[in-house]
Amino acid sequence: MPRVMQETSKRYLHTGKTIGFVPTMGALHEGHLSLIRRAKSENDIVVASIFVNPLQFGAGEDLDIYPRDLEKDLDKLRELDTNILFVPGDKIIYPEGFATRIAVERLSDRLCGRFRPDHFSGVATVVCKLFNIVKPARAYFGQKDFQQTVVISRMVEDLNMDVEVVICPTVRESDGLAMSSRNVYLGAKERLAATVLYKALSSCSQMMAGPSTPNEVKKKLLEMLSAEPLVSEIQYAGIYDPATLLEIDEFKQRNLIAAAIKVGGVRLIDNVMAEYHK
Amino acid sequence: MPRVMQETSKRYLHTGKTIGFVPTMGALHEGHLSLIRRAKSENDIVVASIFVNPLQFGAGEDLDIYPRDLEKDLDKLRELDTNILFVPGDKIIYPEGFATRIAVERLSDRLCGRFRPDHFSGVATVVCKLFNIVKPARAYFGQKDFQQTVVISRMVEDLNMDVEVVICPTVRESDGLAMSSRNVYLGAKERLAATVLYKALSSCSQMMAGPSTPNEVKKKLLEMLSAEPLVSEIQYAGIYDPATLLEIDEFKQRNLIAAAIKVGGVRLIDNVMAEYHK
Repeated sequence: MPRVMQETSKRYLHTGKTIGFVPTMGALHEGHLSLIRRAKSENDIVVASIFVNPLQFGAGEDLDIYPRDLEKDLDKLRELDTNILFVPGDKIIYPEGFATRIAVERLSDRLCGRFRPDHFSGVATVVCKLFNIVKPARAYFGQKDFQQTVVISRMVEDLNMDVEVVICPTVRESDGLAMSSRNVYLGAKERLAATVLYKALSSCSQMMAGPSTPNEVKKKLLEMLSAEPLVSEIQYAGIYDPATLLEIDEFKQRNLIAAAIKVGGVRLIDNVMAEYHK
Repeated sequence: MPRVMQETSKRYLHTGKTIGFVPTMGALHEGHLSLIRRAKSENDIVVASIFVNPLQFGAGEDLDIYPRDLEKDLDKLRELDTNILFVPGDKIIYPEGFATRIAVERLSDRLCGRFRPDHFSGVATVVCKLFNIVKPARAYFGQKDFQQTVVISRMVEDLNMDVEVVICPTVRESDGLAMSSRNVYLGAKERLAATVLYKALSSCSQMMAGPSTPNEVKKKLLEMLSAEPLVSEIQYAGIYDPATLLEIDEFKQRNLIAAAIKVGGVRLIDNVMAEYHK
């Protein structure tokens, strides 16, 4: 099947068409659909893929229960007139004897990487494969998974992959919660409590209009997150350099305010980018 | 410069031309030239590259003294009517912030990998980059570096790279020594002694016509290599499965007889493939 997809892409390229690609793990929500719409507007052909990539799940993570609903996904993609949906099986992507791993050093170890040690290597490996199969001119990713976009952009540059990585704004529910296929894991109470994440991030980004330091903003962020009783764990929360993902002491022009928390056992991540003008 | 090479390749591809690629570290000898000729015969355009890849040299290896002679290399390539020579600088291939590494697990740890721990990851990483820049339909490698061909073939398959890896016969001096840019390191006496490697490998491959076991062949191989007083070290020598690079107890249809030795401090590798018919 990768061969058929690859040959199909080659035929398009030979006729001078550009391919926009939206790789997903399915359970599509408005965030994914916004990527498809953007890809539609910038390319002749749009390819979406659905592959729940075992390589990016750690031991004890939610690979087995990750939400899957191919029928609904297909309806949504049809509605947007997506040209091709590529749904490879596990054994097609990782056949017997598979042995290759791509590591993006340093960037993969920070933020989420501290809690998900092999996650970004799994992401980088599958994205490289999918790019080589689909041969897109542009590939679309949501800003919500910010570290993922940094790791993929770095890999694409380092390996001279001929793909433009396009990062699109996080799509949110009306109360601000970032859309995620994993939000279905939240019970009703947790779903309400989960709004604390974006509330805290956006309040903090507003602090940057006045006089403040990254340390003060971080303190405020931790306070707001800790004030919600259903937040059972704060894995990280702070102000980071968006290029290096390292925590900063002084504001830069662009600052990443990001956090990962657990609400009732469900891990949630979110981030906002805040500009700073002296 | 990778951008210029990449755009040049794209223009050729758009006009339906196929590109054959011969990546080298320069100091070209008849082995490289045989790859160029083969590439010429099978593709519209031939690209050669010269890049002494720091990532594939270990600490204490010969990166600094590796033979370089761009003028002579150019003459040889011109003579064969090579269409493009790509000679990127170190900072073009590994710019500030470079962080991506490709590992081909298991296969990289065996044979030479036991003595050169990061070598094959360095090879895989640079070859992936060069393939993405040059966009060849076919790439040509010599059988002399057998493990390299196995690692690259595995990477190409695992990452769905759209390149055919073509493995070409080892080219030898008249006395059997496999051609290698490193043979210039050999003094006159060592140069004579170095012939023991191919002599031993080819005698052993002949043993397989008669009744014998891999163990007997290995014993003979070690005996012959040890009999040469200038052989100061035998890093490995034996009969291996060419797919897994693991030592075998029973002959398969195709058997790799391979060895790495040191002669007067110069490391030499060679191999022969031997068919076995019950």
